Amino acid sequence: MKTSLCDLLSIKYPIISGGMIWCSGWELASAVSNEGGLGLIGAGSMSPDILREHIKKTKIATQSSNEKNVFGVNLPLMNKDIENNIQVVIEEKVPVVFTSAGNPSIYTPKLKDAGIKVVHVISNEKFAIKAQEACVDAIVAEGFEAGGHNGKEETTTLVLVKQIVDKVDIPVIAAGGIASGEQIAATFCLGAKGVQIGTLFAISKESSAHINFKKAVLASKEGYTKLFFRKLSPTRLLNVVAKDISQTFFSQVEEAENRGATKEELLNLIGVGRSKKGIFEGDLQNGELEIGQAASMLNEIQSVKQIFVELKAGFDRAIQKIS
Amino acid sequence: MKTSLCDLLSIKYPIISGGMIWCSGWELASAVSNEGGLGLIGAGSMSPDILREHIKKTKIATQSSNEKNVFGVNLPLMNKDIENNIQVVIEEKVPVVFTSAGNPSIYTPKLKDAGIKVVHVISNEKFAIKAQEACVDAIVAEGFEAGGHNGKEETTTLVLVKQIVDKVDIPVIAAGGIASGEQIAATFCLGAKGVQIGTLFAISKESSAHINFKKAVLASKEGYTKLFFRKLSPTRLLNVVAKDISQTFFSQVEEAENRGATKEELLNLIGVGRSKKGIFEGDLQNGELEIGQAASMLNEIQSVKQIFVELKAGFDRAIQKIS
Repeated sequence: MKTSLCDLLSIKYPIISGGMIWCSGWELASAVSNEGGLGLIGAGSMSPDILREHIKKTKIATQSSNEKNVFGVNLPLMNKDIENNIQVVIEEKVPVVFTSAGNPSIYTPKLKDAGIKVVHVISNEKFAIKAQEACVDAIVAEGFEAGGHNGKEETTTLVLVKQIVDKVDIPVIAAGGIASGEQIAATFCLGAKGVQIGTLFAISKESSAHINFKKAVLASKEGYTKLFFRKLSPTRLLNVVAKDISQTFFSQVEEAENRGATKEELLNLIGVGRSKKGIFEGDLQNGELEIGQAASMLNEIQSVKQIFVELKAGFDRAIQKIS
Repeated sequence: MKTSLCDLLSIKYPIISGGMIWCSGWELASAVSNEGGLGLIGAGSMSPDILREHIKKTKIATQSSNEKNVFGVNLPLMNKDIENNIQVVIEEKVPVVFTSAGNPSIYTPKLKDAGIKVVHVISNEKFAIKAQEACVDAIVAEGFEAGGHNGKEETTTLVLVKQIVDKVDIPVIAAGGIASGEQIAATFCLGAKGVQIGTLFAISKESSAHINFKKAVLASKEGYTKLFFRKLSPTRLLNVVAKDISQTFFSQVEEAENRGATKEELLNLIGVGRSKKGIFEGDLQNGELEIGQAASMLNEIQSVKQIFVELKAGFDRAIQKIS
């Protein structure tokens, strides 16, 4: 499975766990890095102090491994704490930073001057080219299948990765809908040099998400995730279908979208703290449940170790089949 | 590129041109079959007499080839002429029939009794299993990327094909978003045994679509196709962005969807004959332009021969890269 991305980031396998809000704390990040992938801490919901704590814990949790374990931090650039969080990752000498949801030209030079590898997440050609111009080391091309915030063009991973690989010279990491080794091999056929996996790791044992959330993901079927909020920022949410739960946040959003609710109405409906409530506190009725389309592929809560075993086996099967 | 599907359908390459309304007449079907793929006549808009004429012309156009060229007909099962069209394909001894948009258990036995291979198009697991139970020979798993009518679950090709391959024993043909050899290789990693390609062939020289339509597809960029009519039957349409064309059908639909238009309003807006007007007559303002997300990948109008050369080259590149 070795690609040029492995050399670039000093990792064994080009498998990255997404920096997911309320899921990707130090436990998940260090488990993925200890398996030879790149674990990301998701700073989306973290204050600078909390982020520093997770970085320190990840360092400790990965230091006992034989190899020098690299890990990373995902920094959404629109975050109000972004200035301070940038300072934290520089002070803590974090090896890799993934930036998303913002302009990569602002912080990339500062991060690179500090010796940090920078990877930027994009969902269209225009931003891929801008990221390359901003001298990032690699980009994540994230398709329509991905959970949570999503591109306006709704380009799927199969189309997006092919298009982006043809347009840039830096390594492209595929993301969106990937939860098996066969799919990793598929994105490599398109020219990807690595994958960023969200959903599968979001319900791993080491994810800090609430067990109710993990079980709701496991119970989901085809069509249970839907892209909403096209008038604001497109976001993929999980539907919960259970006898004892009605009038969920999902169903309220669906009803609002169906009647053509305005931006203002939608913002009012969202309110604040919904994703913490849903993903971290396990409130399946009132919480915002962000997950990718691969949710319907998953059947059990696995450890990161088990996940790596299966991803590698599926990848090998696919390569044998096609060779 | 040889797979079990080639043996099943007696074709050289497991590449099928979709039976697209107003595009897939005898010219396109015979050109694809003459290259060693499986060309489909799209009967969606054809009366039994017109269908018979296209079948006869396809037979003539493919008979000069050294090999016995197999071709097929796509029959949307909801079509008002379906009973008569079924009779036509049986009388004309068409080798392969693709059925879509309807229940495969009704006509499959009759077609199979007549010695016809039957392939059914699905977009979710439930219908894949039903199609297998109806004893079809293979299924097409068509993802969210596809043009025109589309599944309600919005599952993308990358996720759908993997899921369906794991659930059925018959060959799975991948469709939706595929317009390059690298993407064919990618779907083979997922376990597909062939591909059905629409968009790329829709703008080929041999497609019967209007030149205005083909040029509009070429001019399109990322995000120019959108899935509409979720309240009726989800359909992917092409946006036309040109100085001299305003108030297009696309923009009217978009406005209606944004304000939460009802089913009735949407049906009124659609009216009748819109797809003929757009695709066949080239009316980019008032016509309904159905095309897949791969539209933004395309840069020129090619002959079917050129298309096959490039698909094979791209496939070989991908296999070499990954092996």
